[in-house]
Amino acid sequence: MDKIKETIEAIKPLDKNAIKLAKERQDFLTKPQGSLGVLEELSIKVAGVTGDPRPTIKNKVIITMAGDHGVVEEGVSAFPQEVTPQMVYNFIRGGAGINVLANHVDARVIVVDMGVATDLEPSPDLINKKVAYGTKNMAKGPAMTREEAEKAVVAGIEVVEEEIKKGMDIAGIGDMGIGNTTPSSAIVAAITGRSVDEVTGRGTGIDDQALEKKVKIIKKSLEVNKPDPKDPLDVLAKVGGLEIGGLAGVVLACAKNRIPVVIDGFISGAAALIAAELAPQSRDYMIAAHQSVEVGHKILLDHLGLKPILNLVLRLGEGTGAALGISLTEAGVRILNEMATFADAGVSESDE
Amino acid sequence: MDKIKETIEAIKPLDKNAIKLAKERQDFLTKPQGSLGVLEELSIKVAGVTGDPRPTIKNKVIITMAGDHGVVEEGVSAFPQEVTPQMVYNFIRGGAGINVLANHVDARVIVVDMGVATDLEPSPDLINKKVAYGTKNMAKGPAMTREEAEKAVVAGIEVVEEEIKKGMDIAGIGDMGIGNTTPSSAIVAAITGRSVDEVTGRGTGIDDQALEKKVKIIKKSLEVNKPDPKDPLDVLAKVGGLEIGGLAGVVLACAKNRIPVVIDGFISGAAALIAAELAPQSRDYMIAAHQSVEVGHKILLDHLGLKPILNLVLRLGEGTGAALGISLTEAGVRILNEMATFADAGVSESDE
Repeated sequence: MDKIKETIEAIKPLDKNAIKLAKERQDFLTKPQGSLGVLEELSIKVAGVTGDPRPTIKNKVIITMAGDHGVVEEGVSAFPQEVTPQMVYNFIRGGAGINVLANHVDARVIVVDMGVATDLEPSPDLINKKVAYGTKNMAKGPAMTREEAEKAVVAGIEVVEEEIKKGMDIAGIGDMGIGNTTPSSAIVAAITGRSVDEVTGRGTGIDDQALEKKVKIIKKSLEVNKPDPKDPLDVLAKVGGLEIGGLAGVVLACAKNRIPVVIDGFISGAAALIAAELAPQSRDYMIAAHQSVEVGHKILLDHLGLKPILNLVLRLGEGTGAALGISLTEAGVRILNEMATFADAGVSESDE
Repeated sequence: MDKIKETIEAIKPLDKNAIKLAKERQDFLTKPQGSLGVLEELSIKVAGVTGDPRPTIKNKVIITMAGDHGVVEEGVSAFPQEVTPQMVYNFIRGGAGINVLANHVDARVIVVDMGVATDLEPSPDLINKKVAYGTKNMAKGPAMTREEAEKAVVAGIEVVEEEIKKGMDIAGIGDMGIGNTTPSSAIVAAITGRSVDEVTGRGTGIDDQALEKKVKIIKKSLEVNKPDPKDPLDVLAKVGGLEIGGLAGVVLACAKNRIPVVIDGFISGAAALIAAELAPQSRDYMIAAHQSVEVGHKILLDHLGLKPILNLVLRLGEGTGAALGISLTEAGVRILNEMATFADAGVSESDE
């Protein structure tokens, strides 16, 4: 807990001077002022995050965390639990969506076992931070102990500390865990106060009947556990997930270390929500990659005050949307750094 | 005109079998079916365009065409006309927005002088297809002769033929021409039948008063010239632009040669509209990169039946949005090609 507290306390406001200088430079570049819209905003945000008025993004990392969920025994997912470790192996072999998109945007993928329900074969490409063999069934009691929740957040902080040593300039976060839209919806309902019906969607693709059951299970989980919305670690422990806790730790550590952190979809968003409740200032360090299909995602992003960059009807997770968001953030930063100014290029300015 | 007619007649429907095979493969990849949304759709579209169920995109080209507009003497733009050649030189030196974004997505930029009002210094990085020293003031008479309009379209076709020899897999189109949102709005009004007020925006950033004047000038141009909406080359000649004609030719030639063509913003969209009126089948070969800020752009895209990939509040042109659209199209194609199937990866499929 000391490490979490210390991380939270070290998060500082954005660098206003860097923001001011980046804005000024954008207005001197050879284009009508503001004509690159969101790309300009992203570059200015990264200036504020890093404290560098002309930041560079080279070392890009996507941190994908995996965990299992006891609640799957209630039949909340379209896929069986064995898919979680199968997909972790797919990540390690490079065959998954996140591998392809990370390659496309020239990012490294870091795969972390936060709590897969089986033992995974050791691999140099897998970080073992297993806190437990999956969570317990939250419909019957707490998903994990408070101690486990804290361990998960600390593990996320540690993963970032290791990546910083290797020079990480930007992080994307992603998830893998069969059943994990269920705890994510529970977290969003608990923290935003919105109804379970409003924040619960079809995940990997369940039908109407299964969706009805999922909503019931989430309501039951909240009734059984009564998570305290004022205490984000209590919410995480009672109705969360180990990969969600780990990703919340990643967000906090990125904020502490002034590294922009690109949030993927609904599950990563639930992790960001936990981080934002623990450290409201951490929101300033977040970039929302995309608007996911999952119905609760818009509510979640509105609560965080984040505008998504993309809307590509994605609902895969793994960090796939984050990979694309990283590339667009880099595009904005490159515009800021690499475009000629009116003076450099001998181009006349606007009459206005 | 023979070359235009021949190009139009050679445009074939999309390859339905390649589409079917690409769809099937997407459904076997290790992700919930449809969970990569627009990326999947893009990959399937490229399969249909190219006729290859597993297409690859390697050689990416952005064709940026420049031209001047006599109508600028009416005061319709925030920037002086001298900026057109200044920006062409900026493109050649690599300092403009399109250069940075093309580098970011690993595309080549082809700069074409279609009708800049001054002589440009020859450069190996500049293709000279100058049809005239800018258009005439369309508020007083036709912007160009029908022969000039045809020459411009043919020049666009020729540029594509040269690039195909170098192995182009995908093209983006972009524009440079001070004042060119004015003819673009006139084209959109003439072809869609929507009012000038509905399709006219602020271009590079004019104020309310200048916008009112711009609307008046466009209305006057349409009254003076009475372009025939059933005859797209008449519309192009009377209220169009040389770079717009060239880009329409690029679109037609890409459709003929089964190359996906990514449309940038409002001006490129006006060119696509001319191409679609000349050859309705060419629409199937177009990908709309983004929803621009320019108010008439949505009307234009709806008329073309295209859904934009991005909405990043862009209004720069040059092909900047197209560069980002190319990268996302490539991302979709790489997903189709590079992801493991359930069988490859030993991952269990959905229970559904």
